[in-house]
Amino acid sequence: MFFMWRSHLAKSLHQHRNQPEARFLQLATIGLDQRPRNRTVVFRGFLENSDRYRDCLKIVTDRRSQKTEQINANPWAEVNWYFTKTRSQFRILGKLILIDHEYPDLELQKARSDAWSSLSEPARVQFAWAHPREPRVSFPEVAPSTPEQPLESFCLLLLEPTEVDRLELRGTPQNRWLHLRDEQGNWTDREVNP
Amino acid sequence: MFFMWRSHLAKSLHQHRNQPEARFLQLATIGLDQRPRNRTVVFRGFLENSDRYRDCLKIVTDRRSQKTEQINANPWAEVNWYFTKTRSQFRILGKLILIDHEYPDLELQKARSDAWSSLSEPARVQFAWAHPREPRVSFPEVAPSTPEQPLESFCLLLLEPTEVDRLELRGTPQNRWLHLRDEQGNWTDREVNP
Repeated sequence: MFFMWRSHLAKSLHQHRNQPEARFLQLATIGLDQRPRNRTVVFRGFLENSDRYRDCLKIVTDRRSQKTEQINANPWAEVNWYFTKTRSQFRILGKLILIDHEYPDLELQKARSDAWSSLSEPARVQFAWAHPREPRVSFPEVAPSTPEQPLESFCLLLLEPTEVDRLELRGTPQNRWLHLRDEQGNWTDREVNP
Repeated sequence: MFFMWRSHLAKSLHQHRNQPEARFLQLATIGLDQRPRNRTVVFRGFLENSDRYRDCLKIVTDRRSQKTEQINANPWAEVNWYFTKTRSQFRILGKLILIDHEYPDLELQKARSDAWSSLSEPARVQFAWAHPREPRVSFPEVAPSTPEQPLESFCLLLLEPTEVDRLELRGTPQNRWLHLRDEQGNWTDREVNP
């Protein structure tokens, strides 16, 4: 059974199923200098076959990217996901779990391998590129990756939601809900002013 | 004369001129609880006719929204702006300037009035709505607003950029630049690895 916000999100995703960019969302974290950082990432689905982590959004990232050290210092993040057709905004606040090649949990290490195998070859190859954000170098041809063995730079990133702020722009006035997760993992829904 | 990132941004905006949602961007700030906050806002143009503030992005906001106190505590913000057709991402880091009805600078107070007059009537009316994010109440009809006199809840929000991280997804490998503003307001451009 889905919670209320998951049903609405599933509906928006379905209505945008022919627009790959509807799976792009904006992930905000806090830099070591206490300035916000905000980048577009790709939604890779939920960690469906897990009891403990079933509400977690899957994202992938390069261990050499700046967000790694940002997450280690402060795991809190807010995702903003806006859907143009339904005119729905989901703000999903939660803690990030960064699963790198040394992460000890076997279930999550398996999820990391699966996420790697699910990537396209052009997406996998990017994890063999030169160090991100350093002065530009020429990129030599790299050997094809193996779908079975993730490169060390490859990380699975999970966002475990604790609060969802949902705004529906359709209607005058607009409609807005707060969905809050308690300690037991149950969600409550509150209608608020837009 | 435009700086390099402004030219590229102008090009992306031009190529998306028929898509109103291309003017939606994601604004990240830091909450009082040191958790990131991230919402979609509308780009209202640059403060063109100003020497001092000509690179500032214009946004409007309600003084009663949570970002007001967040900005007072920490003015740093990063905007993420992704364009689907050109596949360009602009990450614009800078300080926010919140211009409310008591803001002393006359030039910026004028900019606030102009921003108010430029809004559509349905956009203006929202600033007379009940307090955002409080338990939902029924919304009575409100009297039409006056285009000459901004409501007290109306704020102009300026983002003054100091760093722009531009990623062009087209191409293998992709292309990325850092544009940095110095103390004198001059920009330098650095090509980096994607």
